[in-house]
Amino acid sequence: MPDRHLHLDPETRTEVVRRLKSAKGHLEGVLNMLEDPGVYCVDVLKQISAVQGALSAINDRVLRAHIRDHVTTAAQRGDAERIVEELMEALKYKL
Amino acid sequence: MPDRHLHLDPETRTEVVRRLKSAKGHLEGVLNMLEDPGVYCVDVLKQISAVQGALSAINDRVLRAHIRDHVTTAAQRGDAERIVEELMEALKYKL
Amino acid sequence: MPDRHLHLDPETRTEVVRRLKSAKGHLEGVLNMLEDPGVYCVDVLKQISAVQGALSAINDRVLRAHIRDHVTTAAQRGDAERIVEELMEALKYKL
Amino acid sequence: MPDRHLHLDPETRTEVVRRLKSAKGHLEGVLNMLEDPGVYCVDVLKQISAVQGALSAINDRVLRAHIRDHVTTAAQRGDAERIVEELMEALKYKL
Repeated sequence: MPDRHLHLDPETRTEVVRRLKSAKGHLEGVLNMLEDPGVYCVDVLKQISAVQGALSAINDRVLRAHIRDHVTTAAQRGDAERIVEELMEALKYKL
Repeated sequence: MPDRHLHLDPETRTEVVRRLKSAKGHLEGVLNMLEDPGVYCVDVLKQISAVQGALSAINDRVLRAHIRDHVTTAAQRGDAERIVEELMEALKYKL
Repeated sequence: MPDRHLHLDPETRTEVVRRLKSAKGHLEGVLNMLEDPGVYCVDVLKQISAVQGALSAINDRVLRAHIRDHVTTAAQRGDAERIVEELMEALKYKL
Repeated sequence: MPDRHLHLDPETRTEVVRRLKSAKGHLEGVLNMLEDPGVYCVDVLKQISAVQGALSAINDRVLRAHIRDHVTTAAQRGDAERIVEELMEALKYKL
């Protein structure tokens, strides 16, 4: 099976879906908060930054799965330089 | 009216709601993407990082409104040290 | 005196010089560490990231002085929109 | 040879030393800039943030060497879980 190492394993996928739904719920909470005309700026900043933290944690989870897959398939794949490039490419999205 | 300077002005609030709804739609797109068992890690990382970029832009928008409010009311409020503390506090949430 | 609000006050300048010299000393320490051919990757990453933390703290110090100056002179200067633009411009360098 | 995979290869070490010396020169330039009492806040922020960018690029260089070493030795080392942990640990210092 070509390029299997670039796919997300089922366990990580389930976990990521669960956490993304939770982040979406958090965003909906911020939207509710914003229906109050008296909402405080700093509360909005705080909540949005909490969602960003959750998304960063999700990205770390995907990255970890990605790295594991690359490391465990490195011997069969052989081309270390390409594997390193793929990992560095993925790291560009680490915030 | 006490502490008016800490509230979000109506125009910014409308704009922030609009953009948060768009970020939520983007997140829903990522969730759809994840229904495909063959989804690529790097595509997930890329899309989540795009949502984070959108949230950062929203935070900048709130921050800008917050700063404007503090700057325009500074003369009436007088207490520069407290105003600076409030702004530095808000900056903690700038990612 | 035009544009006084854009200058660094003497106290902050002294403090920033002191801290920058310390960051420079830290960098020299990393260079010494690198003379050992057996140096560990993670130790290099850790030390460089500590220097980055010190530089971020210095930038926060400058930013705080910058904000204070803008807030205290806002009443005399009057042009809130330009003051906000200047502060947002400075925030671009906040890492 | 135990733990060879955790050391910095000679070529990367030379490159990192060269770039760190350049970052140190840049910091010395900021210190010179600060001898002028009329120095602008935003110029200080801009220069320090440029040094931070240089340090981030150096950290990316070390990280790349670190990842390459882990990927190429993964087959001999075998313990994928530990290799992934080591890489995730190194990523903590990526700013």
